Amino acid sequence: MNSLTVVKVGGGVLEDSTATHEFLTRFAAIAGSKILVHGGGREATRVQEQLGIPIQMVEGRRVTDAETLKVVTMVYGGLINKQTVARLQTKNCNAIGLCGADAGVIIAKKRPIENIDYGFVGDIEKVDSEIIASLLELELVPVFAPLTLDEKGNILNTNADTIASEVAIAMASLYRVNLVCCFDMPGVLSNPNDVKSVIPTIDPETYLQLKEEGVITDGMIPKLDNFFSAIKRGVSSIVITDANLGAGTRLAKE
Amino acid sequence: MNSLTVVKVGGGVLEDSTATHEFLTRFAAIAGSKILVHGGGREATRVQEQLGIPIQMVEGRRVTDAETLKVVTMVYGGLINKQTVARLQTKNCNAIGLCGADAGVIIAKKRPIENIDYGFVGDIEKVDSEIIASLLELELVPVFAPLTLDEKGNILNTNADTIASEVAIAMASLYRVNLVCCFDMPGVLSNPNDVKSVIPTIDPETYLQLKEEGVITDGMIPKLDNFFSAIKRGVSSIVITDANLGAGTRLAKE
Repeated sequence: MNSLTVVKVGGGVLEDSTATHEFLTRFAAIAGSKILVHGGGREATRVQEQLGIPIQMVEGRRVTDAETLKVVTMVYGGLINKQTVARLQTKNCNAIGLCGADAGVIIAKKRPIENIDYGFVGDIEKVDSEIIASLLELELVPVFAPLTLDEKGNILNTNADTIASEVAIAMASLYRVNLVCCFDMPGVLSNPNDVKSVIPTIDPETYLQLKEEGVITDGMIPKLDNFFSAIKRGVSSIVITDANLGAGTRLAKE
Repeated sequence: MNSLTVVKVGGGVLEDSTATHEFLTRFAAIAGSKILVHGGGREATRVQEQLGIPIQMVEGRRVTDAETLKVVTMVYGGLINKQTVARLQTKNCNAIGLCGADAGVIIAKKRPIENIDYGFVGDIEKVDSEIIASLLELELVPVFAPLTLDEKGNILNTNADTIASEVAIAMASLYRVNLVCCFDMPGVLSNPNDVKSVIPTIDPETYLQLKEEGVITDGMIPKLDNFFSAIKRGVSSIVITDANLGAGTRLAKE
């Protein structure tokens, strides 16, 4: 089984020219098949403000009405995606920019209205691993914007972390998949005040211990729960690091 | 040799919901391999105005400074391209949205500054017919936004008619290519005041006659000159029609 690296990076890293250049150079240097998934919330906020469209966030998620959907389609699918592809092309990385609508590759369902109507926000139902594999076989490097497609032809705003996880899980039937998620810290820290205290490896057993000891708390728990679930669903390893793509913290099956 | 249909449509057709639906239904129904190339100037103008970025047009071409480039990258590469792909997906047409930067498929050169500095505007140097053919072999339908890439990694604003012609010419080494260009009129008219006076076929000989007789004048001459040049460069036939994709006027080699 060939290996595949799926890297998720926040949109912020792709906005600033020095950080962008360094990150993309490192990404381009990753050997073998690879996929990039990017966010873009900050730039979307900026454009939305410039256009005078009110911004409504609930629990960190953007409520996506029809006008906001146009903005994220432009900013994620157009501006950030195509600029990133163009920059990777100069680094000998044959990038191809996609959103979930392209080749119907990521099909989602509009989130049902419960307490909150998130609008045009999608929960992923299916990733077409075959077409992604076909693109990888052409030695292309898919770059995904965080947008998906529903069966009615609506584009849906979809969390980039979730896209990265679901793409990694879907590809695990065909490749040995390593998922690399870039956050603000160089890894999971044993001491939140010391960026050098990165824990090198966490397996399900040590994860339980670290939670019991109170080392891993609050916001990190749902993220890590999701990552360990991705490992159970076939992803070989998950690395939590920052945009420097250092060794970070490796989550292992056992 | 298999046949390939390349259709060029203005962005205006893709903005209005009824016309869009009808055009895309007709496009989706075209049998065999096909490619769509779209414009988007009107929508770009609208977004540019909303963002308060001054618009400068010279001889019908948009002068593209850095801020304008961001707008066209968003509007052409994001909004119109992805909305069109999403709509085609609901019509059993496995569309994949691309700009020239994706897979490095259309390489251009920034137009040299002579009398006018058009800014980030590109003249096409190379179309990668092999990668387009690979995508067609996967039964995908490429949908091109009018953006290209230069060797420095700049995205360049590029005329959609030119992209359609150059893609058609490049693909002619691998396919029997039929280029369909949608304008405002149902074809070349023998009487400009009568939309029913469509001339069914024009070959190079009758083209000369029609120019001599003053039937084809002014703005149509450079367009038709370009089209006959594309036919000389290998495109099998060119149809000039409107968004109804009727029989129109067929330009033939002989």
